[in-house]
Amino acid sequence: MDVLAYASPAAKAPFERTTVQRRDVGPRDVLLDIKAAGICHSDIHTGRDEWGPATYPLVPGHEIAGIITEVGSEVTRHRVGDRVGIGCLVDSCRTCEHCERGLEQYCLNGAVGTYNSTGKDGLPTYGGYSAQLVVDQDFALTIPDALELDAAAPLLCAGITVYSPLNHWQASPGKQVAIVGMGGLGHMGVQIARAMGAEVSVISQTRSKEEDGRRFGAEHYYATSEDGTYKRLRNRFDLIINTVSATLPMRSYLSMLRLDGTMVNVGAPSEPMEVPAFSLMGNRRSWAGSSIGGIPETQEMLDFCALHGIAAVIEKIGPDQIDEAWDRVVASDVRYRFVIDTTQIT
Amino acid sequence: MDVLAYASPAAKAPFERTTVQRRDVGPRDVLLDIKAAGICHSDIHTGRDEWGPATYPLVPGHEIAGIITEVGSEVTRHRVGDRVGIGCLVDSCRTCEHCERGLEQYCLNGAVGTYNSTGKDGLPTYGGYSAQLVVDQDFALTIPDALELDAAAPLLCAGITVYSPLNHWQASPGKQVAIVGMGGLGHMGVQIARAMGAEVSVISQTRSKEEDGRRFGAEHYYATSEDGTYKRLRNRFDLIINTVSATLPMRSYLSMLRLDGTMVNVGAPSEPMEVPAFSLMGNRRSWAGSSIGGIPETQEMLDFCALHGIAAVIEKIGPDQIDEAWDRVVASDVRYRFVIDTTQIT
Repeated sequence: MDVLAYASPAAKAPFERTTVQRRDVGPRDVLLDIKAAGICHSDIHTGRDEWGPATYPLVPGHEIAGIITEVGSEVTRHRVGDRVGIGCLVDSCRTCEHCERGLEQYCLNGAVGTYNSTGKDGLPTYGGYSAQLVVDQDFALTIPDALELDAAAPLLCAGITVYSPLNHWQASPGKQVAIVGMGGLGHMGVQIARAMGAEVSVISQTRSKEEDGRRFGAEHYYATSEDGTYKRLRNRFDLIINTVSATLPMRSYLSMLRLDGTMVNVGAPSEPMEVPAFSLMGNRRSWAGSSIGGIPETQEMLDFCALHGIAAVIEKIGPDQIDEAWDRVVASDVRYRFVIDTTQIT
Repeated sequence: MDVLAYASPAAKAPFERTTVQRRDVGPRDVLLDIKAAGICHSDIHTGRDEWGPATYPLVPGHEIAGIITEVGSEVTRHRVGDRVGIGCLVDSCRTCEHCERGLEQYCLNGAVGTYNSTGKDGLPTYGGYSAQLVVDQDFALTIPDALELDAAAPLLCAGITVYSPLNHWQASPGKQVAIVGMGGLGHMGVQIARAMGAEVSVISQTRSKEEDGRRFGAEHYYATSEDGTYKRLRNRFDLIINTVSATLPMRSYLSMLRLDGTMVNVGAPSEPMEVPAFSLMGNRRSWAGSSIGGIPETQEMLDFCALHGIAAVIEKIGPDQIDEAWDRVVASDVRYRFVIDTTQIT
């Protein structure tokens, strides 16, 4: 079937309204009308070839919320009219030990990305900057009624990407948690970490977002542009979630970890980070990475957000504003996530 | 009191027989005749100013085994004639939360190093390349009778440095553990990890030490100089202990970690390591550091080694051979630890 989409025809070329081919609805598939699609920094890294060569035309978008309009004959999980979300994955092998544990994001045979990948149907995958999507029922998450679709869309990547490490490394009462960077991921991280009961600090370059940070639940707000910040925060945190996709002065950041503390990168700068081993050896620190979340944990996160009244703070745009929005994301000029009104893709 | 020692008078200058001043035996001190002192790569890093400027004259040595010849009036832990070992620390604040947990190596107020440090007595600390040592009773470990003093000396740094992370990250039956580098630390790591019940692999540049590695307990032996080694080992290990004090191709090393696996650096190269965050995000990997061990854990390690018949494999030298031995350590030309016969320092 042909569906309308906004695609980038080549690296760094402007978006164009176009038509892409998706598979017909199979027995275990659902078809959805996409109502909202978040713009993630990953879309831009991919679209601009910063993470290796992409395949064009590229239809990005892995923060997708929509409503089911058709289900295959064997579909049991969803019904027409259901509100569902699609994140970064649309399939995986389902048989490896990681998939069996619900950790599809670490599928040993390679999960299928929502865009810039190839589906089991042999077709290129196209993401959420589009009017409709066909996806296996198992990779469509239920969006609880308490969440608005447009503010829920960013949970499917930004939300789960911070929820998963906060959950895995046990953000909880008594724990000192720092969120580095208060962009799309960071503003979710503050809310979620606080809802988990941790004492939350934001570490940002400046204090420009301090008021918002405190409203989201941060008890402390630190600006690295101020002299002495790193020194004052030495040995302070149990867990640092780094949402910044740029190289950082790692010696300074790691020095903020207390005994057995962990810094977790959820953003991936294109260049390797320079890390002195000495910084890890002091306080027996760890530097870890985490990648989105599995399907069960993503559902858990959506339910958690609904329960705690957490959603993304968004700026809604039309599909003709994608190029401009990308530039603004790169300039950190968005509070806090652009969401495309995909109902305008007609 | 004046004691005989071998000291380096300046960075990269040859060792000289000399006299250094130690404090008199205080109420809580013990005096020991040093019987054996291991040569650790740290001695060389320090002595050659590779870890920042050292203070000269420098008497290195923090792998010390000896026999107590005098005890202070309030000493309760040891008696004259006891066989004791001194490791990298000779004091700490004893009051911070880390010291209270027996993690003196991470003392928040700065532990006192066995050499190139300043003691609470205000005197420079001098290490084990010496005939005698005065030390607080709490920092003298008991060497079980089952261990020879000279083969036990290297346990005080090389042994505990690998025992502590193997213990903390739970090397145990069912776990795949790799030891990178089979030098002084590595050859202890293989023995200890095996005694803990893990399935042990050695990762070395060549197969030149394979026979020894298997004798120490390694089930597998891999040479990175052979094509395809990294690729064959992808997603293989739960725990990698990196004993190599040089920068490594971290992308390749981290790729060998399976889900939630950890690579622990116990060696510290002078230069930062270049680490791509992507390598950590796959499989939710961690890169950590670990520094020697605390006093209680060091005693536990000595008892563990005695129980399992584990000791260092050593090459014994006279004090006049220290310079030559240092060059050979740098060239990896020792199987597996030089130990100075300090009874020859007369």
